[in-house]
Amino acid sequence: MNSTEASPPSARTRVRRVAQRGHYDRATLYAIVDAAYVCHLAFADEHGVHCIPTACWREGDHLYIHGSNGSRMLKLAASGAQVCVTITHLDGLVLARSAFHHSMNYRSAVMYGTFEAIDGEAKAASLDAFVERIAAGRSREVRRGDANELAATTVLRLALDEAAAKVRTGGPLDDDADMALPVWAGVLPLALQPQAPVVDAAPAGTPGYVAEWLRAARVG
Amino acid sequence: MNSTEASPPSARTRVRRVAQRGHYDRATLYAIVDAAYVCHLAFADEHGVHCIPTACWREGDHLYIHGSNGSRMLKLAASGAQVCVTITHLDGLVLARSAFHHSMNYRSAVMYGTFEAIDGEAKAASLDAFVERIAAGRSREVRRGDANELAATTVLRLALDEAAAKVRTGGPLDDDADMALPVWAGVLPLALQPQAPVVDAAPAGTPGYVAEWLRAARVG
Repeated sequence: MNSTEASPPSARTRVRRVAQRGHYDRATLYAIVDAAYVCHLAFADEHGVHCIPTACWREGDHLYIHGSNGSRMLKLAASGAQVCVTITHLDGLVLARSAFHHSMNYRSAVMYGTFEAIDGEAKAASLDAFVERIAAGRSREVRRGDANELAATTVLRLALDEAAAKVRTGGPLDDDADMALPVWAGVLPLALQPQAPVVDAAPAGTPGYVAEWLRAARVG
Repeated sequence: MNSTEASPPSARTRVRRVAQRGHYDRATLYAIVDAAYVCHLAFADEHGVHCIPTACWREGDHLYIHGSNGSRMLKLAASGAQVCVTITHLDGLVLARSAFHHSMNYRSAVMYGTFEAIDGEAKAASLDAFVERIAAGRSREVRRGDANELAATTVLRLALDEAAAKVRTGGPLDDDADMALPVWAGVLPLALQPQAPVVDAAPAGTPGYVAEWLRAARVG
């Protein structure tokens, strides 16, 4: 499957509640993934089901995560366990005239499958890509991981083959009988916004990505 | 256990990766829960493990969720299935001098247990509390759920008895050998911020919570 095709929903990914909010095309899915720094990874072990937040990034048709080799979550994910990875962006509170029709605007992605480990030079390149996703140009500025650091780090990727997005946008959807009620109705939007950078050291001046972050903080 | 006590970590909630970031007191946990509009609910069924975002609120020592009776997730949660509920607030990107020590600032809560259903007048009161959490005073303005709407809605709560918080704050923690590298280091903070309200109708003027949201949007 190339990255322009829509994947048909599976029994797990078909959106059933408010089905018209479901999306199965990669453009919608990847936009949601690319807007995220963090995903929630659900897995099961002998203690039950767990749901742990972890940093993520996308390269091509895969979602990547990383962490210490010692992580229980990464060891289990690397073992080929079935996982569910979810990303959610909350875009606003939707205030309807009736309590029942209150809602939220959001963009979410639910992805199923098994992770595979990335090793050797591909591992180092993926960690570079992650630093670039955080701050474009930064992978050439920082000290790259040395052999010990790379050896202590697990990088895993999940093929985005069984995934669905769900999106709600727009205002409240009230019943006709409620439209004349004297109640404020509308959306209280929310956005995850950059705040002013906190400088620890700037020995070579301010990189472009920090200046850009500050501009976004001021505009927001 | 009353709400001022710390709960000792269980085998599931004891934070193992960077253990000093773990917190087991209710004040830390409840502050994280109360700052959230949405949680991620992980559960397992015959198709595997799932992780679904859903609205949440806290009353006393319980986390509440709600939704349509027809929801697969709610039906399973109401059946007494073991679940894991996770809330994560991303507070910033931590840029270190070495790629290896890049990190994120966050507040997260991981909660285990089984949900119980809330019915009758307690259900209606809980939905009022949810509307109040969204907008203080609004439960007295909107049309309350009628008998049919209440009957179609499931409200569940989870006792917050087996839970842990994990928090990272502050700047990068680089190795001594890297401190002199000519690399920008610091934090790029993030915050989920109110944006200007989108009005659908304001037949009785602008409620205080909408005016307050607009003020927060302008200050942010």
